[in-house]
Amino acid sequence: MGAAMMILHQMQMSGNCYKVRLVARRLGLPMRLKEYGLMDGSTRTPAFLKLNPNGRVPLLEFEDGRLLPESGAIIFHMSEGSRLQPDNAWDRAQMLQWMFFEQYSHEPYIAVARFWLRYAKPQELEKRRHLVPEWHAKGKAALSVMESHLNAHDWFAGRACSIADIALYGYTHCAGEGGFELLDFPAVSAWLARVAAQPGHLPLGEGW
Amino acid sequence: MGAAMMILHQMQMSGNCYKVRLVARRLGLPMRLKEYGLMDGSTRTPAFLKLNPNGRVPLLEFEDGRLLPESGAIIFHMSEGSRLQPDNAWDRAQMLQWMFFEQYSHEPYIAVARFWLRYAKPQELEKRRHLVPEWHAKGKAALSVMESHLNAHDWFAGRACSIADIALYGYTHCAGEGGFELLDFPAVSAWLARVAAQPGHLPLGEGW
Repeated sequence: MGAAMMILHQMQMSGNCYKVRLVARRLGLPMRLKEYGLMDGSTRTPAFLKLNPNGRVPLLEFEDGRLLPESGAIIFHMSEGSRLQPDNAWDRAQMLQWMFFEQYSHEPYIAVARFWLRYAKPQELEKRRHLVPEWHAKGKAALSVMESHLNAHDWFAGRACSIADIALYGYTHCAGEGGFELLDFPAVSAWLARVAAQPGHLPLGEGW
Repeated sequence: MGAAMMILHQMQMSGNCYKVRLVARRLGLPMRLKEYGLMDGSTRTPAFLKLNPNGRVPLLEFEDGRLLPESGAIIFHMSEGSRLQPDNAWDRAQMLQWMFFEQYSHEPYIAVARFWLRYAKPQELEKRRHLVPEWHAKGKAALSVMESHLNAHDWFAGRACSIADIALYGYTHCAGEGGFELLDFPAVSAWLARVAAQPGHLPLGEGW
């Protein structure tokens, strides 16, 4: 038996899971990956629902068996006290502001468009084809909110790359797969390059 | 001119705004309320978009002009170091887990069903009538996740009522207005009564 290690229950293509891998890599926190299938129902089995009644990944399993779902909560907890969080309360409040923005106003359009347009079966996409214009309109609105912030700031909270940047990077950097044109958002594009240039960066396609 | 005071830009019927009023009342933090209309576009005017480019309330304006949107970030910031947050990192991680759960898996169905079924114009509801079954199915799934947690715990994080409970209370206590039957969730119903019995409770309909 090897040394005890955190286990990330995940799907490799999921931007929410990628955020956790990226924070782990940046902070040098070793973890094992347990992979689930994209549309095979494997996060809705009775065994998985015992681990997370909400039936979703990412789910972080600690060495002692404690379990934590929700990418935002996971990356907040992993990075408490580290250089990936600002050290004053006001900047931390803004960090959380952008993390909640991402989950409510960005992910449901940008990640969802990417999923159905790029990863789902064609017949499943056809059932949702009428939703594509709304995904694109609301996703572009979210990118515009980011653009207006980045016209005046290098990072989303405080003076360095924080978990707010990582949370937004997760699905923004691959938004092209959902039919978004990132070149229309030059400040966002420049910020994506800044995030990817940080030491310890990990591309989405790579394991931990 | 009166003493400087925080201003909450809000809509009285919004559960997201109610969370902020409730935390302020519990902690004895005075604030003025600035009311916006429900469907009159008043949070999408150029003047408001300068305050919050995402065009949403709640938005908290501090005495010195600093601005913070996103209910989750606002109530986290207002309650840092108070009895409304657990004092250890693991319980705080679980607090955030439930706050992200609420914004991603609960509010988009339970709050949205309540809004369109109860507050919107009938002709606007009719355009969305085909979405009601999905709102109800996913909203009930969220209530079931809460029920399973509350079958084993009094509160969502740590050993006392925290901002995770307040975040979930906001739209759960009025879910009946969206066509949800709370009596089907006895542990949720008992928890709602526990939250409402806390000192300094404030009903949704009351101003600060």
